[in-house]
Amino acid sequence: YIQELKLNLEQIEKGGYPHFMLKEIYEQPQAIRDTFRGRMRENKGIVKMAGVDDHIDKFINAKRLVILACGTSWHAGLVAEYIIEELVRVPVEVEYASEFRYRNPVIEKDDVVIAISQSGETADTMAAMKLAKEKGAFVFGVCNVVGSSISREAHAGAYTHAGPEIGVASTKAFTTQITVLTLLGLKVAKAKGRISTSDFHMHLEELRLIPEKVEEALKSNDRVKEIAAVYKNASNCLYLGRGFNFPVALEGALKLKEISYIHAEGYPAAEMKHGPIALIDEQMPVVVIATRRGHYDKVVSNIQEIKSRKGKIIAIVTKGDVTVNELADHVIEVPEVMDSMSPLLTTIPLQLLSYHIAVMLGKNVDQPRNLAKSVTVE
Amino acid sequence: YIQELKLNLEQIEKGGYPHFMLKEIYEQPQAIRDTFRGRMRENKGIVKMAGVDDHIDKFINAKRLVILACGTSWHAGLVAEYIIEELVRVPVEVEYASEFRYRNPVIEKDDVVIAISQSGETADTMAAMKLAKEKGAFVFGVCNVVGSSISREAHAGAYTHAGPEIGVASTKAFTTQITVLTLLGLKVAKAKGRISTSDFHMHLEELRLIPEKVEEALKSNDRVKEIAAVYKNASNCLYLGRGFNFPVALEGALKLKEISYIHAEGYPAAEMKHGPIALIDEQMPVVVIATRRGHYDKVVSNIQEIKSRKGKIIAIVTKGDVTVNELADHVIEVPEVMDSMSPLLTTIPLQLLSYHIAVMLGKNVDQPRNLAKSVTVE
Repeated sequence: YIQELKLNLEQIEKGGYPHFMLKEIYEQPQAIRDTFRGRMRENKGIVKMAGVDDHIDKFINAKRLVILACGTSWHAGLVAEYIIEELVRVPVEVEYASEFRYRNPVIEKDDVVIAISQSGETADTMAAMKLAKEKGAFVFGVCNVVGSSISREAHAGAYTHAGPEIGVASTKAFTTQITVLTLLGLKVAKAKGRISTSDFHMHLEELRLIPEKVEEALKSNDRVKEIAAVYKNASNCLYLGRGFNFPVALEGALKLKEISYIHAEGYPAAEMKHGPIALIDEQMPVVVIATRRGHYDKVVSNIQEIKSRKGKIIAIVTKGDVTVNELADHVIEVPEVMDSMSPLLTTIPLQLLSYHIAVMLGKNVDQPRNLAKSVTVE
Repeated sequence: YIQELKLNLEQIEKGGYPHFMLKEIYEQPQAIRDTFRGRMRENKGIVKMAGVDDHIDKFINAKRLVILACGTSWHAGLVAEYIIEELVRVPVEVEYASEFRYRNPVIEKDDVVIAISQSGETADTMAAMKLAKEKGAFVFGVCNVVGSSISREAHAGAYTHAGPEIGVASTKAFTTQITVLTLLGLKVAKAKGRISTSDFHMHLEELRLIPEKVEEALKSNDRVKEIAAVYKNASNCLYLGRGFNFPVALEGALKLKEISYIHAEGYPAAEMKHGPIALIDEQMPVVVIATRRGHYDKVVSNIQEIKSRKGKIIAIVTKGDVTVNELADHVIEVPEVMDSMSPLLTTIPLQLLSYHIAVMLGKNVDQPRNLAKSVTVE
């Protein structure tokens, strides 16, 4: 059996970029646009997704959504948990696929399971999803690779349309997964009558503007490169966020681990005082996501705690920010946006930061040691 | 208003131990016994807990349990998630109290919320619990300090009876929280008819034997001290576990962070290959919980992956283990036990490891920098 790949040559070449990862970071405005194009008809106020439309009763009647994933896709699932709970007002649980599959998980008839995997071949996610199916759940796949195993095994699904992702560290897969799950949340909220027409339109309009805001966020590249030069020899790093940006902190830390081999860890900012703050001293860079609409005052007070322990702060802030700008050692601006969509912007400088540090350290950015692009083993 | 503390003097003195933390680690057999004493009547096959008995309908009818906590208590909540889902077959969600309180969380009428806090004064947990109450949930408190704010605010609750915990790094509070939540799970499973009488008895019998098995686990102290001497200068460390012992890995890492200021991070073992394995080299000690009943084969293969990247393995194994013994650089044995109760044993050498490393590094074990015992601020 031979499957013909429908790819343009330029999709699998570096197109002038030194690495696939950088190319893929820069492709995100287009990748996000491709993901919502044809689905979002913002002037008509509708979102078309055949995989959801054909099974809308499953989503309307779901008592609970369970998201199964690994790695970066698991982080996209955590962002989706926050987005979908807010929009749809139904409990969402995010599980590590590897943990789910090896216990006897509680899955009930009316549960909808969403399996997320860029490659659609992740072994643990595939096995977890099959287990959920056996237990009677309706299973929805979110994959990037068309015709992949998970997309075929699912009852229904939605592709991310990010185009081929070749760098091992996932970038555009993450932002397009969030995009497709935002669309799904909006659709289900509308079908359940949980969102007003005006609010629905406002969300679509915000999403429509995301690609150009990502373009703008990418302009932080030179600034990020300067910051990378300062911290490239750090042996440790913490990433903090709250709310929608807590999973972005986890993802930012994972990127740095993956390609720079620097031990970075993400935390919900408020958990710092329950232990990790003991690590803070003048050697410890702390990346904090401190956008204006995301519990700004609380994050500012977290930053003050870190500064009083002499930690170094790299803050991701909203354009025009004043308060954090005065407190932090470095700030990187991203455009203003609705809080629930801010992960699509705040993640951009974190991808660039890990990229530049890895390049400066002479690491193999596209093929980091010990890692495979598609984890088809347990 | 003056509250009279009913404490013996010896409870708040070090009793011959160099630090409160070490004393409290060694108090665990007694603390666990005190927690189940009077509640567990294993010869009669019953568990008495007034706070559960008086509201048993709430627990029987709960569509979902939501656990709210911070820090070490959050880890105890994760262990409880695994235990209660297995016993009661009802979905359990564990949330960071700080995250829960600042979003508009989905809480439904039939949800039962369990708030866990040693001090009973944790500000974020208190606020999260009040929010859940406002939304109509039945709120159950698990605290150690009698008469504390959370225990008074809850509709009902159960104390851990661990005695005063003075060391800032929580030890006996963790194991007694797991004990009380295991009892709760057993009671509710019995009331719902989800556990057979013989299985129920078997669990009670296993629990009855835990204090003497903890005694035995404490005998690893000299061995752990030797290992501590080898790794005390590590700048980083990973902790891995699966299933019931995944949260124990998180807790082990937190202990090392808190008192040794070494950047340790816990992970579900299978997630390693989705990123963190890139960190592994000959400099990186990896603590792996590899008990015989806990997906042993899978953990063995995780250990092989780490060894093939030259990582150093410190494994917590079941007494008499052969396979891991041959692969690992160091092993620490704990007694054989039912998988769901293994966290009560595997956590012991991890507490000792962090303790000895901190002492060897000359850190202030009982009063680590930047940390407070009871986090009464946000």
